[in-house]
Order: sequence, then structure tokens, then C-alpha cells
Amino acid sequence: MTDRNNCLALDASDPLAALRDQFDLPDGVIYLDGNSLGARPKAALTRAQQVIAQEWGSDLIRSWNTAGWFDLPSRLGNRLAALIGAEADEVVVTDSTSINLFKALAAALQMQAANPATSARRVIVTERSNFPTDIYMAQGLTTWLDRGYTVKLVDRPEQLPAAIDAQTAVVMLTHVNYRTGYQLDMAALTAHIHAQGALAVWDLAHSAGAVPVDLNRAQADLAVGCTYKYLNGGPGAPAFIWIAKRHQAKFRHPLSGWWGHAAPFAMHSEFQPTAGARRALCGTQPIVSLALVECGLDVFAQTTMDQVRAKSLALTDLFIALVERRCGHHPLGLVTPREHARRGSQVSFTHPHGYAVMQALIARGVIGDYREPEIMRFGFTPLYTSYVDVWDAVEVLLQILDKQDYDLNAERDAVT
Amino acid sequence: MTDRNNCLALDASDPLAALRDQFDLPDGVIYLDGNSLGARPKAALTRAQQVIAQEWGSDLIRSWNTAGWFDLPSRLGNRLAALIGAEADEVVVTDSTSINLFKALAAALQMQAANPATSARRVIVTERSNFPTDIYMAQGLTTWLDRGYTVKLVDRPEQLPAAIDAQTAVVMLTHVNYRTGYQLDMAALTAHIHAQGALAVWDLAHSAGAVPVDLNRAQADLAVGCTYKYLNGGPGAPAFIWIAKRHQAKFRHPLSGWWGHAAPFAMHSEFQPTAGARRALCGTQPIVSLALVECGLDVFAQTTMDQVRAKSLALTDLFIALVERRCGHHPLGLVTPREHARRGSQVSFTHPHGYAVMQALIARGVIGDYREPEIMRFGFTPLYTSYVDVWDAVEVLLQILDKQDYDLNAERDAVT
Repeated sequence: MTDRNNCLALDASDPLAALRDQFDLPDGVIYLDGNSLGARPKAALTRAQQVIAQEWGSDLIRSWNTAGWFDLPSRLGNRLAALIGAEADEVVVTDSTSINLFKALAAALQMQAANPATSARRVIVTERSNFPTDIYMAQGLTTWLDRGYTVKLVDRPEQLPAAIDAQTAVVMLTHVNYRTGYQLDMAALTAHIHAQGALAVWDLAHSAGAVPVDLNRAQADLAVGCTYKYLNGGPGAPAFIWIAKRHQAKFRHPLSGWWGHAAPFAMHSEFQPTAGARRALCGTQPIVSLALVECGLDVFAQTTMDQVRAKSLALTDLFIALVERRCGHHPLGLVTPREHARRGSQVSFTHPHGYAVMQALIARGVIGDYREPEIMRFGFTPLYTSYVDVWDAVEVLLQILDKQDYDLNAERDAVT
Repeated sequence: MTDRNNCLALDASDPLAALRDQFDLPDGVIYLDGNSLGARPKAALTRAQQVIAQEWGSDLIRSWNTAGWFDLPSRLGNRLAALIGAEADEVVVTDSTSINLFKALAAALQMQAANPATSARRVIVTERSNFPTDIYMAQGLTTWLDRGYTVKLVDRPEQLPAAIDAQTAVVMLTHVNYRTGYQLDMAALTAHIHAQGALAVWDLAHSAGAVPVDLNRAQADLAVGCTYKYLNGGPGAPAFIWIAKRHQAKFRHPLSGWWGHAAPFAMHSEFQPTAGARRALCGTQPIVSLALVECGLDVFAQTTMDQVRAKSLALTDLFIALVERRCGHHPLGLVTPREHARRGSQVSFTHPHGYAVMQALIARGVIGDYREPEIMRFGFTPLYTSYVDVWDAVEVLLQILDKQDYDLNAERDAVT
């Protein structure tokens, strides 16, 4: 039976253990919310000083050229590509995940509309349990297009294959579910989607930096994702969008701003998209936030996604086992799949008083988060989470539950 | 005749002179490009450290509540409102100018389509000389709507009134032209636009913080603008969007992401817009870049737009007078209106070798910029530009022109 000393021993032989030193983690905190906001790479402070004091303050407007600001979405995209099975010039880091999803969906619908074999298709298939903004963006797009498109919400992942048929234009799926941690089989689903004549748009918000992703091997069509969760890019850091090489020449979207123009400084009055992934760009990017994305990528450059995945599974296995063994007398329900292939890098448990229990955990320095209904989420980020963190978190959970040391009237924060 | 000593005397009695100390301006530089990228408020470095080290690093996910991250677009919008004649809860700071313009245009077209008196109107009127991304965004929106909308490009500002007629759904104008510095008469044009049954969408990219703006007094309908130029918010800092109170209940746009939802954390699967200006929000914002916008606003809080305007006109008058007097034997052509009411806070001169001359100026520390065709732009930012800066800049220009000390083969940067 695993005890705390076993956990310490696992840390001592952990090949990723040294990477923790590259993050700023406050004393007294076990941070299990990297699936919501990744911890801060220590280098981010120095990098921000460089961008603000030197590039902005001293070099001023010249930094668009001398500091490579204009090229930054591509340069970061090319680095991020290695983590998601993408090639050079297939990814740009820009805008928000919601906005990038809008671009990807719009482009996918247009590609289907331009193909005589699929032009009559009017259904976007997704999961009802998808992160709501993905559904909202699809609703916003289809409402505005006003061409009879509908968004079909599927209740359970197992029902997805049957829901994708000859009416389906696009399937928009989040690879790892934000609430359950359920990981869809990207390759199998993409093959099925293509067999049905539809296109596959993947949201990697909870995948990039969390689980191995190979977009090109899966022959996915388009993808978007987030840099501020497992990639540790900073609060609200710009998101990314991936366009498979084979689709780039046809990729058009309504947010046709000057950064996506073939000659942005020629000041022509007609829009002409540039080549490659940069045609997904729109307007000027928030350079300070964008530049910090690189600090997170620098840490990933020191390991591999296989190493990250091995430790992620070990941490989540350990957490599940310890909670079930030590807290099994409490009404906790495992939501996240036990099967490795179906699991992301988080573990979710329901508890009838999930919100109050999570507030008690946070008050004691074990920071996870809560999602309706009743779900306590615990994110495991192998770059900075240790095995003994897992032991200690479960110990705190056990004490809270055993003593019912939580406040059922805990006031809800605006952001939960 | 003004000489350098007169300029020093003007600085000595300048009520805004002390504000210059709040900016980081490199030695040996006369910065006349604040119309492209505002200089760095010194406070920005400290604020970035606070956001990165404390709010992100130490407080982590809790900062969405404790540091007010979620509320930041509104809080900054409410502060910015004072500079543009807006009320509380009419402005949010978010996304890019291009994307905000897309939202505003889409909402305006929908409002017109929903009104039986205007539902058949299919024309968006703008200027051919508008900043290209504004035109591109209108083209992107109308192409995707595919309902017969066209974008009508007017060649000269004087032709605008006649171009606005019973076919016009929306007039989209940039208040101060990025290239010429020509300031449109917002109140008169808005009145004319309304008299023709159209809606007025204003782009304040070169107005906010540059000239007095009173959106509500002009009875404008919607507006967008930039924070990284005269507002000194930092490179690519998030932009703003203004929704007149009377239009807010009807304001809908296609980028319906979770930040614009009435209950963003309830995780409903149907989009329901929130009240007020926040319905213009879409996805998660780049918090570090967003937070720095406040440092620029803090400087404006120490003066008034009337004071800023008085100095702006004095600086631009002085620059025009000195260039014409001292460099009048060179083929320079004033592009910017002499009439105060028609002038923004920049002065543009053409020169047959404008690009090369501007490169020579920059090499000597006088930083303006160049815009096709042949236009040298000089931005005057009363918060940190002095009268003696103007004298010295003209002196450098004179030397370059008299000695023809510029390189006609100067290589073009990617970003010019």
C-alpha cells in the first residue's frame, strides 16, 4: 500500500522533478488547477521586463521589426506545433480560443459549402457537455449565417459516431472534456467523420501540453486551443489555431483583418489573404501577453510529451487510488475514466457538497476548482506537481470530509 | 520669429510639462510616433511585476476574483469612458480594434435589418482612405452574410454627405484619418447620417486621448478604438468598444462567447447575452496586456482633454510653421488640415523621397513613421512631447534635406 514515503521515493526518481524549480509556486499551496490557469514560469518576470522596459520602453515602434513582434504569432506557433503533431507554418498564436474557433468553424463550413458533394449539409455536431463557449460560438456563427445550419448536441461520447451522418457538415469536438476529463479518440473519430464526408474541428484547450496530440497523424482538419492552461502562458494568454497544410489555400474566415493580409503595409483597400497559417490572423496582438507564452514553451522544450504523459498517468492513477482507498467512506463519485486512453490530465470527483468541499480545500492550500453540477476538478501538471503533492492533497481532503469541516453556506465567487 | 529659446520658454510655462516624467523615453530620441505606439508609462513595469509575480504567480487562479481580472474589461472601460464622452457601462476594453469593429458593424446591420423602415438597406459607407483593416472587416462581414450588402468607398471627406442616402444602412468612419490626420466633424456627420436613417459607427483609433471626443453629445451609435496609440496602453494592448446606452438591449453580434453570457459560469448550453457593454465581450482576455492599459489611463486622470488639445494644437501649429519656414525650399507638401477643427494630433508631409527621409530621421533619433504614398507622419503627444522637441526635430529634418543625407536605396523593413 502506497504511503507518503513511497510518494517521496517516486519524486526522488522522477525524471521531470527538476522542472518544478522553473516555476514560481507559493509556499503552502498544492496547486491542482493548472488545467484552468497554469502556474507561472519564473522566466516570465524577466521576459516581461525585457518586453516592457527594453522592447517597448527603449526601442519603441522599432520593435515591430527589431524584436520580431510582427512575426511572434508564427514563431510561437511553430514552437507549439511540436506539442500537437503539427508542421511548420500550420499554427499561429493569436486572439482567444473562442474567436479562433469561430474562424475555424466558419472556414470549415465554407469548405463544405464549396464542395458539390457536401454543399447541402447543414449540421454541426458537437457534445452537449462541450465547454459552453464552443457551443455559443457555433450558435453565433450559424445564427448570423442564417442559411439553415443547426448545432446538434450529442449527450454522450459513445453516441457521437451514430450522430455523424450524411447531413453533417462539420464535427466540432473538444478532445478532452473540461469537466469530466474524458479524452475522445481523435484518430478514430476523425476517420469516422471523414468517412461520413464531414470535417473535424478539434478544440485542444485541455490537451495541448496535457496529453500527446498528433493532429497530422489523425488527419484532423482544423484545431484551436489554449495557452494559459497546461502550457503555462499566463492569464488569458493568446490562444492558437492550427490549419492542416492541405486546407490552407482554401481557408477563409470572416474576421479578415490586416494581419492576415498578403501585404499588410501596402494599405490596399481590398482584402487578399496571406499564405499559410497567418491567414488566420486578424488584428494587432497583445504583445506583452503574447511574448510570455514563450516561457511556458521553453519548459516543454526540456522534456517530451511522452515523459509528460507517463507522469500524468502516474499522478492521476495515484490520486484516484488514494482517494478511493482513504476517502472511500464518503459519497465521492469518480467522473473521470479509469481507462488511460480515455483520460486527460485531470481527475474529477462528484460530492453532494462539492462546492463547499472545494472551498475548504482551497482555504487549506489545496487549489482545485469546481464546476457545476457537484464536480470537484483536480488538474495534474507533471511539470510542477509532485507525487507527495498528491499524497498531501488527499490527506487534506480526508480531514475535511471526516470532520465535515466545510461551510455549506459558502458564498459563491463571481468566477468559480 | 520663433527660435529655440522661445520653445524652451513655452516648455517652462507648459502646464503638462511635468507629466513627461511619468514616461520612459530613451535618451537621444525625439519620439513623434505616439500615434502608432504610445510611449511607456514608467508605472507599467511595476504594474506588470504585480500582475505577473503576485496576481499570477502567488495568487494564481484566485486572482480572477481577488484581483478583479474578470471585471477588468469593464473597470478599464469605465475609466476610458471619461475621455470619449461615454457613460458608465457603455465601454469595455477587449480584443482588437478589428474584431470590435466586426462586432459593432454586425450589430448595427442587424439593428437596421430588424427595423421595417431600414430593413432593405444594403450599403455600408466608408472612406477609401480609411485604415485598411476597417474596410477588410466590413468586406469580411458582408461577404459572409451574403445578403447583398456592399461597401461603398468614398474618395474624399467632402463627398461623404452626398454619398449617404436612403440605401445606406451603416456609415463606418474613422474620426481622425491615420494617414492625413484629417478630423471629421463627428456631430455634424452623425446628425446627417441619422437624418438619412442610417447608423453611425465611429473608429476612434487616432482620436481617443488625442482629441476631445464626445460620443453621447454627438449622439453616435457605436464606436471602437485603440489603447496602444495615444492612450499609451502598451504594444497591441486590447482595444475598446462603446455601445450607446439606448442601443444596448438590441446589441447582438456573432462572436457570442462565454464572457458575454448572462451567466458565464452556469455553463448553460444556450447563449444568453449579459446586460450592458459586457455583451460585447467574447473570450478570455490577455490579462497582463490588459492590466497595463490602466497605467496610461492613470496619466490622463491628471489632466483634461481640453488641456491636452490646447497643447496638441500648439505643437502641431508650431511644427507646421517651422517646417514651412525653415524647410520651405524643399519639396514638402502639407497633407494635414491647417484648420484646427479638422486636425487630429499628427502632422503629415509628403516628400518625393519620404521613405528614405524618414529612415534618415529615425537613424538620427527623430522617430516618426512612413505611410504609402510618400507620406511622413509625425505624431504629437502632449503628455510627453515638448516644444523644444519640435524645434529639434525640425532642425534634424532641415539638415537631412539640405545635405540630401538620406539613402534612396534604404531597405524596407517588414513593418514600415
